[in-house]
Amino acid sequence: MFDITPPDKTGAPDIQARIDGKTKPPGALGQLEVLAAQLARVLGDNVQISRPAMLVFAADHGIASAGVSIAPPEVTAQMVANFAAGGAAINVFCRQLGWQLEIIDAGMLSAPEVSLGVTDCRLGAGTGPIHKRAAMTPGQVERGLNLARERVKAHVAEGSNLIGLGEMGIGNTSSAAAVMAALLGLEARDCVGRGTGVDAATLKRKQMLVEQALLLHMDTLNSPTSILASVGGFEIVQMTGAMLAAAELGVPVLVDGFIAGAAALAAVKMHPHCRDYLIFAHQSGERAHGLMLQHLEAEPLLDLGLRLGEGTGAALALPLVQAAANFYREMASFDDAGIEKV
Amino acid sequence: MFDITPPDKTGAPDIQARIDGKTKPPGALGQLEVLAAQLARVLGDNVQISRPAMLVFAADHGIASAGVSIAPPEVTAQMVANFAAGGAAINVFCRQLGWQLEIIDAGMLSAPEVSLGVTDCRLGAGTGPIHKRAAMTPGQVERGLNLARERVKAHVAEGSNLIGLGEMGIGNTSSAAAVMAALLGLEARDCVGRGTGVDAATLKRKQMLVEQALLLHMDTLNSPTSILASVGGFEIVQMTGAMLAAAELGVPVLVDGFIAGAAALAAVKMHPHCRDYLIFAHQSGERAHGLMLQHLEAEPLLDLGLRLGEGTGAALALPLVQAAANFYREMASFDDAGIEKV
Repeated sequence: MFDITPPDKTGAPDIQARIDGKTKPPGALGQLEVLAAQLARVLGDNVQISRPAMLVFAADHGIASAGVSIAPPEVTAQMVANFAAGGAAINVFCRQLGWQLEIIDAGMLSAPEVSLGVTDCRLGAGTGPIHKRAAMTPGQVERGLNLARERVKAHVAEGSNLIGLGEMGIGNTSSAAAVMAALLGLEARDCVGRGTGVDAATLKRKQMLVEQALLLHMDTLNSPTSILASVGGFEIVQMTGAMLAAAELGVPVLVDGFIAGAAALAAVKMHPHCRDYLIFAHQSGERAHGLMLQHLEAEPLLDLGLRLGEGTGAALALPLVQAAANFYREMASFDDAGIEKV
Repeated sequence: MFDITPPDKTGAPDIQARIDGKTKPPGALGQLEVLAAQLARVLGDNVQISRPAMLVFAADHGIASAGVSIAPPEVTAQMVANFAAGGAAINVFCRQLGWQLEIIDAGMLSAPEVSLGVTDCRLGAGTGPIHKRAAMTPGQVERGLNLARERVKAHVAEGSNLIGLGEMGIGNTSSAAAVMAALLGLEARDCVGRGTGVDAATLKRKQMLVEQALLLHMDTLNSPTSILASVGGFEIVQMTGAMLAAAELGVPVLVDGFIAGAAALAAVKMHPHCRDYLIFAHQSGERAHGLMLQHLEAEPLLDLGLRLGEGTGAALALPLVQAAANFYREMASFDDAGIEKV
């Protein structure tokens, strides 16, 4: 469905030679050197980040009404209104760092007021409660992947060459944990955590409900698409589509935390080459995120104990991506500077 | 010698209440919340970072001619010329992030050409080799602290309310390790690491020379000032002075890696309240840096495997400091946004 080719790797030795020729000891810029090499492979030798675009997908989850979060389901809509008014953390960070911010309704309980300027990519009025029935139909998954592809295409057409992805959706760590467990063949208890901060009793209920969902859908958890249909979320599906679309267009993606990570797992299972285009922004406070990142062979850029979502971790990692591109492009070589190579 | 008062802590409960009232679950911005509280205590409730100034102190070290680095001593001057020409990593990051960059000669082997625009704060033509004699006199230490104070004062007078500190000096991890060992009563082997990347044989020689220095100066390693005189470096002394001066003026300091960390240890030993003004930018690749940060009770913002110095870690942490200030100042509260507090 997506036509993803791996970045051209024939230039990799030249890229590494250019990095090693910069006026610094070999490897002294640590992870930024690995990132610069990835960016150069994907975006070419004159890599420069332009018009970075942050897409925040909001959606509701049937499981939320079973009480798996510290907040009631209405908070999804309230926070989307807060995004629209510019008052949330993601707004502050996007203004500071120069992100284009688009808020997308991937399937909230009710469509937000048109005046809020939220993009309509609705797949429904919240997913089905995954512990009782499927989250959505396979047709909704396909539609969601395509809607997200259109959003990414629109930004790339306007000149964006970096896409950041975040989300808002009360209950979505439950869905993300179920997607992770199903994709990796793990138990619910290995994947469920405290989300934005539930207590021990709620954590236990959340684990039981996810376990129940995995059991209920056991027979259909056999492909990424049907896993997304059975236990996914509308924002998770659309983030998956956005990653695949960006990879298809040859544009890197900054992946936020645990929920976006579940989408990344699905995208990479569908199209392994998609992984070459993904940059992992931060290690979140969510317990299972470390294990998820291990499976993705990802070393995230930040580890600040964030557990907010909204794309905040991805937003905050932008200056590091720019720094990697900039040192690669601008920094003098030993030859330029007339310094003895060390 | 420096008149440092702790930030007013009477407002701390109000600061925490303001952070907890923001539209996010309590603690969901992790380390940025701790940082925002520190910034608000130091800079007040309307905290906003203005004209951040990065001071990079360059100096030479007598011990360098004993071969403790991957690079020969001449590289200090070559890299300073590279800074002046705008070609080094610190230049790239300062241009990107909006730092005012000042390069300061704290005591290189020879004074750089005037045309390079390097500030003259020379304490001598490199320190004495610490394994054979004192690095400098107590009078040079005092002069260094004062020269750095003048540099910080000048930037604060021009409107800077954040000072970043970095360094360049072949051989300076040896001196920093000796300062750390002497200040904390540790062995040379606990404090000496590979610097920018020496091999096992050089590492062993480096450890032996630092051990020799600690033994030689045993009788004078009894106060921060005399430790700096015996085994310090001109850039380490001036970074110590810059931290104390910033604290005196009520301005926070972004501390780079291992060498700047040794200066921070000395500053905090001299004036414990100085600690309230220090922000630790990154966990460097240098082996003993973790132990040093532990002693400073510091949780650094970044951990990217950097081991370059120049202030690069401090430079890269600026957007996180700005993000902490900005969310504190700009983000909506639950009351503002009409959201049920979670």
